[in-house]
Amino acid sequence: MSNGSSAQGAGVLLAILRDGHARTRGELARLTGLSRSTVSQRLDGLIGQRWVVPQESAVSSGGRPATVFAFNDAARVVLTADLGATRARLAVLDLGMNVLAERAEQLPVAHGPEPTLERVVTVLGELLAAAGRDASQVCGVGVGLPGPVEHRSGRPVNPPIMPGWDGFAVPEWLRARLGAPVLVDNDVNIMALGEHWAARPAVDHLLFIKMGTGIGCGIISGGRLHRGAQGAAGDVGHIRVPASEAPCRCGNTGCLEAVAGGASMAAALREAGIEAHGSRDVVALMRAGDLHATRLVRQAGREVGAVMASIVNFFNPSLIVVGGDVAEAGEQVLAGVRETIYSRSLPLATQHLGIRVSALGERAGIVGAAVLVAEHVLAPAAIDRAVAG
Amino acid sequence: MSNGSSAQGAGVLLAILRDGHARTRGELARLTGLSRSTVSQRLDGLIGQRWVVPQESAVSSGGRPATVFAFNDAARVVLTADLGATRARLAVLDLGMNVLAERAEQLPVAHGPEPTLERVVTVLGELLAAAGRDASQVCGVGVGLPGPVEHRSGRPVNPPIMPGWDGFAVPEWLRARLGAPVLVDNDVNIMALGEHWAARPAVDHLLFIKMGTGIGCGIISGGRLHRGAQGAAGDVGHIRVPASEAPCRCGNTGCLEAVAGGASMAAALREAGIEAHGSRDVVALMRAGDLHATRLVRQAGREVGAVMASIVNFFNPSLIVVGGDVAEAGEQVLAGVRETIYSRSLPLATQHLGIRVSALGERAGIVGAAVLVAEHVLAPAAIDRAVAG
Repeated sequence: MSNGSSAQGAGVLLAILRDGHARTRGELARLTGLSRSTVSQRLDGLIGQRWVVPQESAVSSGGRPATVFAFNDAARVVLTADLGATRARLAVLDLGMNVLAERAEQLPVAHGPEPTLERVVTVLGELLAAAGRDASQVCGVGVGLPGPVEHRSGRPVNPPIMPGWDGFAVPEWLRARLGAPVLVDNDVNIMALGEHWAARPAVDHLLFIKMGTGIGCGIISGGRLHRGAQGAAGDVGHIRVPASEAPCRCGNTGCLEAVAGGASMAAALREAGIEAHGSRDVVALMRAGDLHATRLVRQAGREVGAVMASIVNFFNPSLIVVGGDVAEAGEQVLAGVRETIYSRSLPLATQHLGIRVSALGERAGIVGAAVLVAEHVLAPAAIDRAVAG
Repeated sequence: MSNGSSAQGAGVLLAILRDGHARTRGELARLTGLSRSTVSQRLDGLIGQRWVVPQESAVSSGGRPATVFAFNDAARVVLTADLGATRARLAVLDLGMNVLAERAEQLPVAHGPEPTLERVVTVLGELLAAAGRDASQVCGVGVGLPGPVEHRSGRPVNPPIMPGWDGFAVPEWLRARLGAPVLVDNDVNIMALGEHWAARPAVDHLLFIKMGTGIGCGIISGGRLHRGAQGAAGDVGHIRVPASEAPCRCGNTGCLEAVAGGASMAAALREAGIEAHGSRDVVALMRAGDLHATRLVRQAGREVGAVMASIVNFFNPSLIVVGGDVAEAGEQVLAGVRETIYSRSLPLATQHLGIRVSALGERAGIVGAAVLVAEHVLAPAAIDRAVAG
């Protein structure tokens, strides 16, 4: 029986080994239903491409030590760029999501796609060298952008704070220069992927709320990113808040962002004669003991909690992670979120619900971008093709 | 190379053929990456168990007609029971979701699990005979219950209107009598599965709202049922409605159900001296021209729309289906739902959003119960095992 150029089963074997446990040929045959000879053939292919490394088992069942096979998460690296409105974090990670080299720097996306992405290419090259790796080891590039991204094409769609980026072919532009597959998504989605990775393996349903200048939500349903029909899922910043007529930058009134967004809190402080230009200033003022800023941040937590209380009844997540600049206010903001969700959601939906600040902090985006790439590159069908290669 | 008792690939072949298109061996080899000899072996196994039927292709590319292979959706049948508070619909369907025999009858779940399920077994036996099938052709049993069901065990969990059912082992009890795998879920989830099946293949993200005595929501994310961490997802009936202090049966005030549920509308009519005992009476009064009932139903549509407007921003569905007794008020209720969602949700989330009444009507539950069984029985790994026998 010939398998032609197919290597069906290789990807399934690798998917099993990605949990970090090394296994014998016999264990892998049992877990997959593949014959032992197929398992051996596929393992040879995976070892040849360094996806898998054979090891001597410490504990042997019989007289002689058995060979076990382990996922080689150091075999490949991922280049990542998490672009905010004015700042970027860039990094090289391996497939165990270990950060090998990273840098944060000012890089305003308002300068347009080509100047921004040229800088991204330069810095990623420097980081790759600093990590002691070369281009042949790069299996993919993951990019987060501060605006809506069409999932299929990886292109920004009418991004409000990214002049010149609408429809720009980010994946093709970067692939031509970096020579590897490029995955692009919006910043909130990649942060949700990062936090889901950090919470593995217990959490299947997770919400990541980014409280910054604006307010957005990344959604993990059944372990997968839920992007929605137009990729617009998670746009909670423009949900109506009861009893508010505050004007929002979107043109409506009473949006969550207009009462709890960093930009609106800074505006409220300026109206009170206090200098503040964004969410970071609001948090800095609060830390410095400004009562007005403290009141605003606590109220923002309650407003976000009120909206999330409805969403908790609807979605029944097991974990809510709060991130973004305003989340750096820590318990001041979290107290309001928790208080409102626990008092307004159903007991069954809250009895095991965790609500906490980001586990990864400023690294949530780069880890999530690497997860996005890993899910693509390590998909069983992709590994089958790579090994058949 | 031996495959032992494995038939890996059989399930993948069947999954491809389930779209209703017959295909040649060569097409199946290309689509799966399996060798032609493996495809032939697996097709023989599938034909032997009647999952697949070979056919002469009408159009031939060369001189002689090619053999094509088609999913045999008539090969097996599913027994289904959609139990409401007082009425049940029972049916036999094939795997193309064609209803072969069905019956609706009074069957109050309040009589307890054993009397209710004994009647279910009796009726399903009669329907199976009426459909001209026998027990050997039954591949599974799907049951919908009017209360929360633990997904893993298929048992009711503290169901408020089902005395005696808490923790009752419905799957084991029915399996002992019907001799096939039994899948149990709550009624709103199975209706969502049915409506998703009816909307296939274009709709990946669907919300099904049941407006009856209470109000619940079934959620399809990425083509899969989203049950949430405790299986409590979709409990939108107890989301707080702004500016309402109406007491709810759950003990809180201002819940959506307390203003838009059939029970609360009937209570409001009784307070006005009009006789009404449930959602069906409210709709009947509206149809008879009662202005008070009409006003209540239209307002219920607006209240549901206001809650769903926030959920549309969060979830970005492509289709919202409204079902349940109150949905039988048709445009009277739908107008309010549409008006509020379109005015309060973001344009990106509503530009391609469909909002309509149930396509399957009273059959949504039995079709969804059959889909639940089919997804279980036809899962590729299950087919691999069945064919390996």
